Amino acid sequence: MVYPKPVEELIDQLRILPAIGPRSAERIALWLLLDRKRNPVSLAEALVECEKQVGFCSQCGFFAEKGEDCSVCNSSRRTSNAICVVEKAPDVIALERSGAFNGKYHCLGGVLSPLDGIHPEDLRIESLIHRVDEMDEGAEVILAIGVHIEGEATSSYLEGVLKDKEVKVTRLARGLPVGANLEFADQLTLTRAFEGRLS
Amino acid sequence: MVYPKPVEELIDQLRILPAIGPRSAERIALWLLLDRKRNPVSLAEALVECEKQVGFCSQCGFFAEKGEDCSVCNSSRRTSNAICVVEKAPDVIALERSGAFNGKYHCLGGVLSPLDGIHPEDLRIESLIHRVDEMDEGAEVILAIGVHIEGEATSSYLEGVLKDKEVKVTRLARGLPVGANLEFADQLTLTRAFEGRLS
Repeated sequence: MVYPKPVEELIDQLRILPAIGPRSAERIALWLLLDRKRNPVSLAEALVECEKQVGFCSQCGFFAEKGEDCSVCNSSRRTSNAICVVEKAPDVIALERSGAFNGKYHCLGGVLSPLDGIHPEDLRIESLIHRVDEMDEGAEVILAIGVHIEGEATSSYLEGVLKDKEVKVTRLARGLPVGANLEFADQLTLTRAFEGRLS
Repeated sequence: MVYPKPVEELIDQLRILPAIGPRSAERIALWLLLDRKRNPVSLAEALVECEKQVGFCSQCGFFAEKGEDCSVCNSSRRTSNAICVVEKAPDVIALERSGAFNGKYHCLGGVLSPLDGIHPEDLRIESLIHRVDEMDEGAEVILAIGVHIEGEATSSYLEGVLKDKEVKVTRLARGLPVGANLEFADQLTLTRAFEGRLS
């Protein structure tokens, strides 16, 4: 290629980002270089600041500024009487967008997957049990983990671990997604939708 | 939003890139943060290096390391007997990929567009004339400027400016693109394809 070395290096770095192919990487690099009002250094600074300042909340495992708890755990408007257990931090964003939940979260950092070497001690389960022990009677732990084999296994494992605690443990409903057409729904989804039918 | 401030700032910076929407910006930011093997700092460094080291070739206006000429102008394997005039640096990349040309380039840095306030003195036309004056007799200047109103006007203007020089001035052929179907070709393209027909 005829690009100077630093441009090639930038294209290589952009190309490994998700959703960015070689053509887009090139387009972005050229745009940053040609449109000098778009200072590439401000993007660089944002990246460095993230690396320096962003860590994980010691309570729930969601993103937080280093040394601080996250905005959800810090909020006084959220009830401490319900913990929603999710697989990973981006799941918190999805739930927050829905506005369906007003309690605290707990990010496991993954799901059980013995074949990939992910066992209970690799997830943030110890700290979940610790948090559950501190909850008042009548509190609720909602398992909001993905509906796939490892997710279901993780939910079942957590149900077992939490069954002697004085909290209610629930799972998110499984069934037809909004907008779904019965004709194209898969067998398992239909089975779950039947099992969970409401009167 | 519930993100820490530096994450929001990173998402904002990613969102202004071309071909990246708000969802992709978020996805990239989360990916950089969650997959700690992907050090966001290496992308930051690539951006800063580009800003520091990359400038434009003093000869042709293509990308070059600062204070140096570009790889095309520096190459001894390229003939100095032909200059291909293009609108902007990325056009050089497209032509290099085609492998159709083995001479030097000249990037104008834009096209004439009086309505946008872009006049001949805003483009690298002075330095083009200077380079043409240095060319041997029988040399060729190929105008490879986009086939749109401003591009055509710029080509015509350059033909006028260069008509008394001792070089041959040509334009890239205009006609049907490879793979084109006559049925779907626009009128103007068909007109140009007729005008330029070869026996």
